[in-house]
Amino acid sequence: MNTVHVETPGGAYPIHIGAGRLGLLAQSIPADATAVALVTNPTVGGLYAAGVEKTLAEAGHRVLRIDLPDGEEHKDWQTLNLIFDALLQNRFDRKAVLVALGGGVIGDMVGFAAACYMRGVRFVQVPTTLLAQVDSSVGGKTAVNHPLGKNMIGAFYQPDAVEIDVDVLKTLPQREIAAGLAEVIKYGMIIDAPFFDWCEQNVDALRALEHNAITYAIRRSCELKAYVVSQDERESGLRAILNFGHTFGHAIEAGLGYGQWLHGEAVGCGMIQAAELSAAVLGLPRGSVERIRSLVRAIGCPDAPPDLGVERWLDLMQVDKKTEGGQLRFVLLPEIGRAVCQPAPDEAVREVLQRTVSA
Amino acid sequence: MNTVHVETPGGAYPIHIGAGRLGLLAQSIPADATAVALVTNPTVGGLYAAGVEKTLAEAGHRVLRIDLPDGEEHKDWQTLNLIFDALLQNRFDRKAVLVALGGGVIGDMVGFAAACYMRGVRFVQVPTTLLAQVDSSVGGKTAVNHPLGKNMIGAFYQPDAVEIDVDVLKTLPQREIAAGLAEVIKYGMIIDAPFFDWCEQNVDALRALEHNAITYAIRRSCELKAYVVSQDERESGLRAILNFGHTFGHAIEAGLGYGQWLHGEAVGCGMIQAAELSAAVLGLPRGSVERIRSLVRAIGCPDAPPDLGVERWLDLMQVDKKTEGGQLRFVLLPEIGRAVCQPAPDEAVREVLQRTVSA
Ligand SMILES: NC(=O)c1ccc[n+]([C@@H]2O[C@H](COP(=O)([O-])OP(=O)(O)OC[C@H]3O[C@@H](n4cnc5c(N)ncnc54)[C@H](O)[C@@H]3O)[C@@H](O)[C@H]2O)c1
Ligand SMILES: NC(=O)c1ccc[n+]([C@@H]2O[C@H](COP(=O)([O-])OP(=O)(O)OC[C@H]3O[C@@H](n4cnc5c(N)ncnc54)[C@H](O)[C@@H]3O)[C@@H](O)[C@H]2O)c1
Ligand SMILES: [Zn+2]
Ligand SMILES: [Zn+2]
Repeated sequence: MNTVHVETPGGAYPIHIGAGRLGLLAQSIPADATAVALVTNPTVGGLYAAGVEKTLAEAGHRVLRIDLPDGEEHKDWQTLNLIFDALLQNRFDRKAVLVALGGGVIGDMVGFAAACYMRGVRFVQVPTTLLAQVDSSVGGKTAVNHPLGKNMIGAFYQPDAVEIDVDVLKTLPQREIAAGLAEVIKYGMIIDAPFFDWCEQNVDALRALEHNAITYAIRRSCELKAYVVSQDERESGLRAILNFGHTFGHAIEAGLGYGQWLHGEAVGCGMIQAAELSAAVLGLPRGSVERIRSLVRAIGCPDAPPDLGVERWLDLMQVDKKTEGGQLRFVLLPEIGRAVCQPAPDEAVREVLQRTVSA
Repeated sequence: MNTVHVETPGGAYPIHIGAGRLGLLAQSIPADATAVALVTNPTVGGLYAAGVEKTLAEAGHRVLRIDLPDGEEHKDWQTLNLIFDALLQNRFDRKAVLVALGGGVIGDMVGFAAACYMRGVRFVQVPTTLLAQVDSSVGGKTAVNHPLGKNMIGAFYQPDAVEIDVDVLKTLPQREIAAGLAEVIKYGMIIDAPFFDWCEQNVDALRALEHNAITYAIRRSCELKAYVVSQDERESGLRAILNFGHTFGHAIEAGLGYGQWLHGEAVGCGMIQAAELSAAVLGLPRGSVERIRSLVRAIGCPDAPPDLGVERWLDLMQVDKKTEGGQLRFVLLPEIGRAVCQPAPDEAVREVLQRTVSA
């Protein structure tokens, strides 16, 4: 088992990574929990909830299972309310503990529910997608979507623990693996050049979920995200670099309609575009742009952005919440392993879009 | 002008108290605000919003007025969503500032909206009821109601500033004044015996809103609440004493249906019951119980609890969120000016209820 320690002003907590962690989940539930709500969806719950419920019950906990409908389209207030309804109907008090068993959708919603229920109860993240394991379960960002924007309503709220069981990845569709790997290689690009090299060398082992490779990749990703988050819990500075590729990626997701491309797929492709913009604005060497393009392809993500037309692309990027006072900022790479956040000249953005996505 | 400084782990901010503060509101808006949302309701907005909008616009701010329907029955997620809709439709970003102009309902909702919008934006409290000025605007508790319980969904989130204009109390109905005074005298009972004495001596001046008296009462209340909150932002210990009279009071509100008695009226009456329980459990002198009863009467609150039947009373008090692991705890007074939080024997509770409210 590997452990990564996360420290933020909002709280310190461990991330445990290993095989068979689901069976040991009771160890991460605070001893004074008055009850445990296991929140999941039918897909993940059907595979893993019974085992988890048994483990928790054997440890003496009163367990309530709450199934939310599966899918990003249900990441909204109505679905969040199903959690509140169940907790209140079952008289869960302020010492109850919530467990998020699922991907990033479940994790974000349960984290936000924990932040709001009686103004804050404890919760444990049990991420079951690769994306959730390397990204969304770490760092305390929680949210639901609003019809006018993704993740617009939420909180910064840290879990008590994160339990990552690498075994559960075996039931995850290949496309979801590729999407998760996009966030993995992102860490190399923005902050750890040797890790980028390592990913290039081990891309086949990663896609095959070879135990040592995937465990190391998850651990290193968590370490790197934890480092960034510890420097900047509330996203006022450094944390913005985690959004490398995301301004383009969000435009793809919104432009095609959410659910067409997976988030990680859009980010994978968006990182190629952000690398192109980095070349134009900061002189990132062409060789580095091509290494990024190759690795995105190698992990199994699309590398050709959808053709939405330049004006629509610009419009979609404007609504991204990273615009402050109207100015569009990007995360750019001066070199692989180092990222900066800065406004980019309009022409450079248009030029990159024209070259890659214009009609 | 009087200023009280509040310090909590979640942030430090000033409370300004005086006449004519509404006209000076621009001083409390952070200079880098990209836009200001003035959230109010038709009652308060009709009286004061135009002036505030003018002041803010003159200071160079882009101002968006958002009117929410008036009333506790609208303190819910649907109404909260009206704020999010307006902010997103008008492309408010993370550097926007919300202003809560109204009573505790507006303050609690706008505070919670600020906590959640894009995971947290800044906000300023401009409380316009006496209850909001001495209680709800100070301390960072924000929330909306859920059909299964009041204030069940919320956050601890501190404002950037609180602006208290004593002039606005002149338009407040007399019943609301009495309800606010209940929270004022509560501070004397739980933590400041000399202030309790002062309230007894100045009760007529307070009811008449005599400037010096009401200003001092508000300032002292804010100081005392700020002190308690600074010791215990997240309500794990000391802060519980602020709930003196509230377990009984909440049962009255819920038992009669919310809106029958005002919150402060229910708390006023509940404090008499809690004083009776304190006499039974901790030996609070009968003379002190009678002083509390007299002062509650003198401020204009009802002193006879409604007859709901003992079993229903007990049931209503059980659902109060201060029960942890099923055990019912009360805030009790060993003497006027000092409060403790502890479980009370069932018989003592029944006995007090039987004497005051049984059928
Ligand atoms: N909080 C953050 O910092 C952060 C960061 C990145 C993304 N996110 C959010 O995460 C969400 C995306 O998360 P996701 O990619 O995990 O999507 P997801 O939660 O929708 O999971 C993808 C699909 O895989 C299924 N699934 C999950 N685990 C499985 C398993 N072990 N076996 C088989 N099927 C399984 C799910 O039920 C779902 O159908 C988005 O809402 C995004 O906004 C949040
Ligand atoms: N956050 C906290 O710590 C805390 C503490 C106590 C109470 N509360 C909450 O506060 C709420 C009660 O607040 P409230 O008593 O202020 O009720 P309220 O906000 O409903 O206001 C009472 C009425 O007075 C009107 N009004 C407000 N200011 C006025 C003015 N200057 N002139 C004329 N009319 C005016 C309002 O529009 C409303 O109709 C409850 O929801 C309660 O849960 C919160
Ligand atoms: Zn991402
Ligand atoms: Zn109160």
